Order: sequence, then structure tokens, then C-alpha cells
Amino acid sequence: MTVTEIAAQAKAASLKLAGLSTQDKNKALEKMAEAIEANEARILSANKKDLEYAQAENISKALLARLALNAAKVKSMAQGIRSVSRLADPVGREKSVTELDEGLILHHVTCPIGVIGAIFESRPDAVPQISSLCLKSGNAVILKGGTEAQHTNKVIVSLLASAAGEVAGVPETAIQMIETRAEVAEMLDQDRYINLVVPRGSNAFVRYIQETTKIPVLGHSEGICNAYIDEDVDIDMAVRVVLDSKLQYPAACNALENLLIHRDIAEKVLPLLVDKFKEQEVELVGCANTCQLAPGIQKADDSEWDTEYNDLKLAVKVVADMGEAIEFINLHGSGHTDTILTRDKERAEMFLNEVDSSSVIWNASTRFADGFRYGLGAEIGISTNKTHARGPVGLEGLVIYKYKLTGKGQIAGDYSGDGAKEFTHKPIAPGKGRSEPA
Amino acid sequence: MTVTEIAAQAKAASLKLAGLSTQDKNKALEKMAEAIEANEARILSANKKDLEYAQAENISKALLARLALNAAKVKSMAQGIRSVSRLADPVGREKSVTELDEGLILHHVTCPIGVIGAIFESRPDAVPQISSLCLKSGNAVILKGGTEAQHTNKVIVSLLASAAGEVAGVPETAIQMIETRAEVAEMLDQDRYINLVVPRGSNAFVRYIQETTKIPVLGHSEGICNAYIDEDVDIDMAVRVVLDSKLQYPAACNALENLLIHRDIAEKVLPLLVDKFKEQEVELVGCANTCQLAPGIQKADDSEWDTEYNDLKLAVKVVADMGEAIEFINLHGSGHTDTILTRDKERAEMFLNEVDSSSVIWNASTRFADGFRYGLGAEIGISTNKTHARGPVGLEGLVIYKYKLTGKGQIAGDYSGDGAKEFTHKPIAPGKGRSEPA
Repeated sequence: MTVTEIAAQAKAASLKLAGLSTQDKNKALEKMAEAIEANEARILSANKKDLEYAQAENISKALLARLALNAAKVKSMAQGIRSVSRLADPVGREKSVTELDEGLILHHVTCPIGVIGAIFESRPDAVPQISSLCLKSGNAVILKGGTEAQHTNKVIVSLLASAAGEVAGVPETAIQMIETRAEVAEMLDQDRYINLVVPRGSNAFVRYIQETTKIPVLGHSEGICNAYIDEDVDIDMAVRVVLDSKLQYPAACNALENLLIHRDIAEKVLPLLVDKFKEQEVELVGCANTCQLAPGIQKADDSEWDTEYNDLKLAVKVVADMGEAIEFINLHGSGHTDTILTRDKERAEMFLNEVDSSSVIWNASTRFADGFRYGLGAEIGISTNKTHARGPVGLEGLVIYKYKLTGKGQIAGDYSGDGAKEFTHKPIAPGKGRSEPA
Repeated sequence: MTVTEIAAQAKAASLKLAGLSTQDKNKALEKMAEAIEANEARILSANKKDLEYAQAENISKALLARLALNAAKVKSMAQGIRSVSRLADPVGREKSVTELDEGLILHHVTCPIGVIGAIFESRPDAVPQISSLCLKSGNAVILKGGTEAQHTNKVIVSLLASAAGEVAGVPETAIQMIETRAEVAEMLDQDRYINLVVPRGSNAFVRYIQETTKIPVLGHSEGICNAYIDEDVDIDMAVRVVLDSKLQYPAACNALENLLIHRDIAEKVLPLLVDKFKEQEVELVGCANTCQLAPGIQKADDSEWDTEYNDLKLAVKVVADMGEAIEFINLHGSGHTDTILTRDKERAEMFLNEVDSSSVIWNASTRFADGFRYGLGAEIGISTNKTHARGPVGLEGLVIYKYKLTGKGQIAGDYSGDGAKEFTHKPIAPGKGRSEPA
């Protein structure tokens, strides 16, 4: 099948999925979880093939670890699907209801987006996760995983698709897969059928997707996160939060890359931080003032303020005031996550309002910016877009809305010209949305 | 100034606007309304220049009528600004508040998008309308109006910008303007600074914008709207609604272009419609069955099902059932507005769920799909996008959200590994949002 055919099938499937009840979607999710559990042996044997191939290709240990499945991981895939099933249905929620006139009622209701193209790295557990989020939100999905995991992904996709298809009304084509890079390029051309592309992977890869396709892209290429230590601050707290932001998982997109310090507190806080970071083998680079205050720190070159290290390295800058810090962050940050450490409530509020990032934090670690920690239940990705969905994105980012207007034969002509009827525009309390399964 | 400089200034202005109180924004809007009223003579004299030029260029009467201002139109511009001022502030609304743990509170809060690029046709009253919507939603705007209205627009923009700038904290650069086509092309390249482009104009123009820029575009190129007459229907009602959908304003994007009729009712309803449409000088084209049932109707060629006539012409097709109608609409419609005329509640619900359009209507005219009629207060445009904002778009489509997390020094490390603290993820009732002015 060509990618265009796959995409057209996905579009057709999405129109069916849009009308499904919560109950039927949850039934399909349960079937999917059961299919994973019942076919553990098949999944592990496909995974073994991928691992052998990967070892022969000499891929890195880190990648191998992410690729490798075992019984526990397969079980947790099934649990992940069931946890998505327990989330509230994001579709059919009434955002508002308005009486336009007697018997002419406007329902502003959430609905699925349509077809999602999901492109991700080698972890095979992304397959059930993304598939279940898309199905719960009534979207069809076309998956493209890492080549290293191809055998594993293929088995999992076919299990999920046919399990979902066992429920009446759910097309098997709700979950499909493509395999080659050439197919990805073709997929990015399917703006007629595909409504949203969700890429997860390296910065360069995500940027390539963003620059290549006309389809809206939900994702982030860079995570250049910043912390600002204000002059009026609990120094111990600031040091603890900065260390955690950098060190709790340096390879994460919400890890700290630039540290800004108010000049009136720099002399006190910088030596403490330098010692702690040295203990943790973090390389520091800094502005001229930083180097003067903490001899031995390498001077940062200009490009470093725009660099995502994803590693044990941090750039430090002394600033004259919070205004300079905000300006720096809005210029050099990537709009991902930034934190201010201060006792001053007013300045904190100004920082939270004026820093133009999806997550802005006062007195806590940047590492909290994550779908699980934010309580979203499950995460399809993190977005640095300024439209549609921003920050950690859960089911809510996979729906849009439509207007459903129900009347009794009203015509617009009666509301215009001489003797025009007037609209009442009376808000009505929205319903509770789709009934959840008993 | 180059367009890049204008865009950079707009970006800087947007960061200030994001922090403004509702009160200050409304103060700026009142100043803007007053400036328009106080400078009626200046506006009309600039408009006279545009009109003289337009007459010399022999532009159409319709265009001239839209271009021409008078005292009443200037007054209604000021009133329009005041009516936007009275709308609820879309910024700072808490969508949800979650306690992640004791003293670690996540606020999911609406915020402005940033910088809007607005490109529109010759009506100068679009300038105060778009400017006030952007200011109220905390966005900076760069306007490009029709060349015919250049003198008028220039005076209005400069009045609005300096009036807004009189309020402390509101930068004059919140409202800026560009003038030439070359500048539009440059503006579409400013994806670094501009977050959303809102084009209003001809289909070809909007499509050009959509295909040219990497910036998200809010708009619609085509309005191919459909009506389906079900077999179980009040025929008088159906005829009335179909006539209104086509005729109440045929040039509008929500006017009817394709009419689908269930075959079991076609014999009854088609002759009635043919007579009525003949009276109104509407040209009908149809499928083979239509032509057979109503001799004298021209056969439609295949391209006509995908054509937006915007004129006194309509394509008619007899279908076997609602399934065929839905399939036809999802294939040939433009996802704008579609109506079903039926007594059958179950089929109506299926139609409303499965037709993939921003407005889906049961027993009422397609002409109701409009920001004013929907009660949105004011409309920035109509969107056929599947992400961000869909259908008639008011202030709500000009905001996005950010996550504000406030803590007491919490670090992520405490919530992972051995002895990890657990998140409480307790929902808290959201606040009422920004206080409205006294």
C-alpha cells in the first residue's frame, strides 16, 4: 500500500472514530491491553530479532537498553493502555452551550482532530502509549518508530489494530504503521489527510520535520531552560533547586542550561554553586563577571547562551536586574521551562507573566515540567508552539472542537432587515459531556 | 524601518502586553475610541484622498462602497472598540488549578499568543476591529490593509497606536502597519517574531498565504457548504432553510453550494425547490438523477461539486442514503458549515458527529455560522483549520495558555527513586481569573 492509501484509510477511519461512545473506545482499549498480555511471547521473540540485529550493528548501550523488552515491560505496556482507558474522555465535552433564540441552541463541543502522524525514537513502548492516547481521543494514527525496533513495533501495531477492530464500529485502520524514511517523507506531504504530526526525537530531527511539512507539528526541537536567582532569595533553597534542575536528569529537555544570578547576590551564591557543581563534575562556563567572581570558570562564548548541552555543562551569567534576566530568557531560551528563585512575590508574578515560555516556575525545579508530574495522566509530547497546545500535552491537545447548532427550521433572513428578530444569546449550563462507562 | 525591525518591536511590545491588567487594557481601548471620535475630520479627509484615487483607478462600485467612510461609520468604529472593551478578558483565566503536592501548585492559565499579522481587504473599519481584538487579548498586531485604503488606514493606525500608548505600560508599537506587497512577503518570513497570521480576502489570496508561510495561519480559503435533505423531513421547513442558506447572502462563505437530497423524497421536494429557485433566478446544475426528476436542469460536471460559486448558482445531487451524503460532504465540502434537514433525531446526531466540519447544523440555515450570530461578541475570522481554533473565531482564538507552577523550593529528585514522595494531584477550584474593572 502507498502512504497516500494508508493516509486516506486513516482519514476514513477517523470519521468513524469521531462518533464512538466512551464505552466502545474503552472496550477497544481493554482488548488492546489483553492482546498485548496474551502475546508476550510473540512480542519478545520479535524484540529478540531487533536486539540481535542491533548488536550486530554495534549500536550504543543506551539505545540497546531502551530497545530491549522483557516480561515486566510488556506487562507495563498493557497497564499503560488501561491507565489511558481510565482517563476522562476528552471528546464530546461541552465547552459552552448558548441559546441563540428560542429553540436554536449552539453547542460548542470538543471533537477529535482527525489523523495524527506520530514519529518517534526506538522505544517500542511508545507504540501502545501513542496508540492508546489517539484512540481514546478518537483520532486515527499512523506510526513510524525507530528502524532498530521495526520487528517489535510491527508485531505490536498489528496486535493493537486487530484487537481494536474486534469492537464493532472501530476500524482496524485506526492504527497503522509505516516503516521507511522514504515513507516518512511521503507522509509529511499528506496534508490533505493528516491533521497533526507529532515528532519525538533529536533536535535536528524535529527541526527537519517542522521545516519540511505543511501539516501542523506538535513538538519541541530545543529545550533551553533557564533559572534566575533574584537578589532577595533563600540561598540554600536556590542552590538546591538549581542543582536538581541541572542534575536530576541532565539529558532531559527540561534540564537547566543557563543560570542567571542577580549581581547583588552573585558573590554569596556563586562560590557555593561552583563547589557543588565541581563535586558533581559539571563543567561551568560564564560571562566576564562570573569568571571574575569565580576564578577557574571558562569564559562562555556567545553561542553558548543558545546551546542545549543535555549534559554535565552549564552556562552562568550575572545580570543587573530581573528585567535583564527576563529579556535574556525571552531571547535565548526556547520557550520551554524557566524558573525564578525569589522571596519577592511581586517580582515572581512579573516573571511568570512576562517570561514567554510554556512552563514558568517560581521556587521549584524546572524538572517538574512533565506530563506525569503535572498530573495529565499520559503525555503525547511537549510542545513549544504558541498555538493549539503548549507545554506537556496530554489528551486535551489531541482534540479540537466543533459547533453543533440545533434548530427547528430557523432561517437567517428572519434575523435581519426590517422587523428582524433579536438573538437572545443566553448562556445555558453545559452538560456533563459523554457519559462515562458504568 | 524594515519589516524585521517592525516585527521585533512587535515581539518586544507583546511581552509587555502580556502582563497588562484588564483595567489598563480597557483604558487603552477607551483612549482609542476617543481618538477615533476626536479625529473624525482627519480620518474623513484621508478617506477622501483614497476615494479620489480609487475613482481615478476605476475600481468597482462595490469596492468603493466598502472603502467610503462617513461620520456615522467613524462613530460606529469607536462603538466597535468600546464593545470589545466590554467583552470579558480572555487572558489570565484559570483553566485548571492542581495541587501537585503540598505547597506545589500548578496553574493552567490563558495567556496571549504574542504577535498577530493581520492581512485584510479594503474595508478601513477592519483596522479598529482587529486592533481592539488584539489589544484586548494582549497581542501585538501588525496590520496590512488593502492598498486602496492606504491613506485612511495609516491615519487610523497612527491614532490608535498613540492613543493606546498614552496608557502607562502600553507600548505604541502594540499596533503597527505595513503597506506594500513586498512587505507582506517579508512579514510571512518572520516566523521568529510573528506567531499567527490572520488573512481575510479572496480564496486565492488566503491559499497563497497558507502555502507561503511557516507561521500558523488562522483562516479559510474556501466555503463549500452543503445541505442534506433526509427522507423523513418537514418539506416546507426544508425548502425554507435551503432557500435562506443559498439566498440570504450568496457571496458569503457560509452560503450553500451543494444540495443533497435523499432519493425517496427527491420526487416530492425537488420540483418545489426548482420553482422557488427559478423565481429567484438561481441557476441549478445537477447529477443525472436530478436532471431526470427535474427536466431543464443542466448536468453538473465533476468539478462543480468542489466549486464555491459565491453566486446565484447551486449544484444538486440525489443520494441513496445519509451515509452517502456524509461521505460526499467530507470529500467535497471545505469543512466550513453543513446542515441536515430531518425529523429523525438519531440520524441528525450521527450527521453532527460524523460530518467533519467546524459548524454542523440540524434544521437551521448555514447562514447562522458567524461570530455575531453565535454570540462571540466580535470575530477575528472564520477558520477551517483542525488545530488551535475552528469556525467563527473570537477573542478565545487569540489566546493560548501557559503553566505557572509555584513552589517552596521543591526539587524533582525528592519524587523519584527510593523513598520517593508521592504527588497528590489534587484538583483545586480555579479562581475567577483577572478582576474586571470596577
